[in-house]
Amino acid sequence: MSLTGAASAPGDLLTFADDLRVVAEDVNACLTSLLPLPQGPEQRVVEAMRYSALDGGKRLRPFLAVASADLFHVPRAHSLRAGAAVEMVHCYSLIHDDLPAMDDDDLRRGRPTCHKAFDEATAILAGDGLLTGAFAVLSDEETHPDGDTRAKLVAALAEAAGAEGMVGGQMLDLLAEDMDMSESEIERLQVLKTGRLLAVSCQVGGILGQADTATLEDLRTYGLCLGAAFQIADDLLDLEATAGDLGKATGKDDAAGKATFVSLHGPERARKRAKTLVDQAVAALSPFGESAELLRAAAAFTVNRQS
Amino acid sequence: MSLTGAASAPGDLLTFADDLRVVAEDVNACLTSLLPLPQGPEQRVVEAMRYSALDGGKRLRPFLAVASADLFHVPRAHSLRAGAAVEMVHCYSLIHDDLPAMDDDDLRRGRPTCHKAFDEATAILAGDGLLTGAFAVLSDEETHPDGDTRAKLVAALAEAAGAEGMVGGQMLDLLAEDMDMSESEIERLQVLKTGRLLAVSCQVGGILGQADTATLEDLRTYGLCLGAAFQIADDLLDLEATAGDLGKATGKDDAAGKATFVSLHGPERARKRAKTLVDQAVAALSPFGESAELLRAAAAFTVNRQS
Repeated sequence: MSLTGAASAPGDLLTFADDLRVVAEDVNACLTSLLPLPQGPEQRVVEAMRYSALDGGKRLRPFLAVASADLFHVPRAHSLRAGAAVEMVHCYSLIHDDLPAMDDDDLRRGRPTCHKAFDEATAILAGDGLLTGAFAVLSDEETHPDGDTRAKLVAALAEAAGAEGMVGGQMLDLLAEDMDMSESEIERLQVLKTGRLLAVSCQVGGILGQADTATLEDLRTYGLCLGAAFQIADDLLDLEATAGDLGKATGKDDAAGKATFVSLHGPERARKRAKTLVDQAVAALSPFGESAELLRAAAAFTVNRQS
Repeated sequence: MSLTGAASAPGDLLTFADDLRVVAEDVNACLTSLLPLPQGPEQRVVEAMRYSALDGGKRLRPFLAVASADLFHVPRAHSLRAGAAVEMVHCYSLIHDDLPAMDDDDLRRGRPTCHKAFDEATAILAGDGLLTGAFAVLSDEETHPDGDTRAKLVAALAEAAGAEGMVGGQMLDLLAEDMDMSESEIERLQVLKTGRLLAVSCQVGGILGQADTATLEDLRTYGLCLGAAFQIADDLLDLEATAGDLGKATGKDDAAGKATFVSLHGPERARKRAKTLVDQAVAALSPFGESAELLRAAAAFTVNRQS
């Protein structure tokens, strides 16, 4: 793995894929223990929560939380829980985004979406349950012994996920179909919809490690740049891949007339822009020196992944 | 106002209505300041959040939070914020419950429901935004200077609202239409769907006041008994009132074949049961002596209200 910049050789990516898989397995175990089935008939909603939360996703957000917390030697038992909480919020947002009233998607990661596998009402409640559960996890003493730290985790996630963050971004995304958005407006949409949750994934690692404000700001910058690169890579994949590759419907943004950096400037300029963003993400890690190699590899992975 | 038991004379109820209105006005001001409109087009989702959160509700839950916190001389600036957070969760649950995929209601408190006034997608997001916002409020230093107390507030609300509380109750309620439920199952449904949020309204007051475990348990018992009485009163109102009185559709439970204590045992036994529950709620307040008169009046109000 390159210690001086973004990993790019195939060998580095392979190593990173291993690292990512190890964290994914640990996070899956953590999520399973955090979502026990209750005894009554209401266990249906927890079955739906588990269906969507334990679906073989890459777990990039928990990885960022764990890798960021590793910078401060935070016990994995803590950082995995914080990462699982962010992932629960990510999964809730996918369930709600897929609903017929929203993006109306039938397929997600190669499987029926939650409202297809269960029903619409159960899917709405499963999303609500995951969102609420994320805050239960962060406020629990098992996530960190210090109450002030737990409250800071909750505040950071609530800010990133709420109306001034992800919820606002999804609102903008729905409105975008009927709007002529400028490039800066598209960028703002994507920061809100995707970037803020990726950024807070890194921030929770720093919060667990009692990092100072400037350090948290570096992690946030890294996460926002990585998020923007991630979004462009997603749009490129959406343009180029088939549904079979991605396990979800493709070409939908184009069909809905939604502008993206790719549709505005073409794939070549988009690829260059993504590379610049990865460089900026990596630059934000310079204060951490060699200890940030996992985060540097994650930035490279973001734009080099195939799904 | 009676200092020895549940208030019941018309004069007492009038006094209580005044107390309730004073807190409601303060909570409305608090909610308004907690839900500022952002600058971009995504302000639509905050407009929907404000539409549903500032709709002239009685604010019983914030009242319980404030009156419980008053027992411990907690500054109103703190208890109003905690009460507003619980109310945000209550309002989110109403928005999602009213959706076409759930109870499919067009009318709420005499006005079009959120998805009718806006649209389904915006209503889903407005609920998500209110739920997330509640945890942002509780984790903010303005709600309490001590981080441990803030984390406890978050944990209590998340537990009451999540899959083991309100979300589980709503799942059960949806399943109830196709189930033959026993009386104890109906009671459990109502504890989860209504009782837990009313109970946590009281608990947050105690948490703000650094109450010990036994005292928090008394407040919880009071809230659960009050919640059960509240539910029976609601079912009686649903049976007897017209839509004009309540500002929402009536007779829906009956039409959907949902069993309630009222449908199982008739209005007379239901009224007696509600009275017994109010007595139990009041009994749980005995350790607080005269200082709990507002909470005693709230218990009486619960079963004597007309809407």
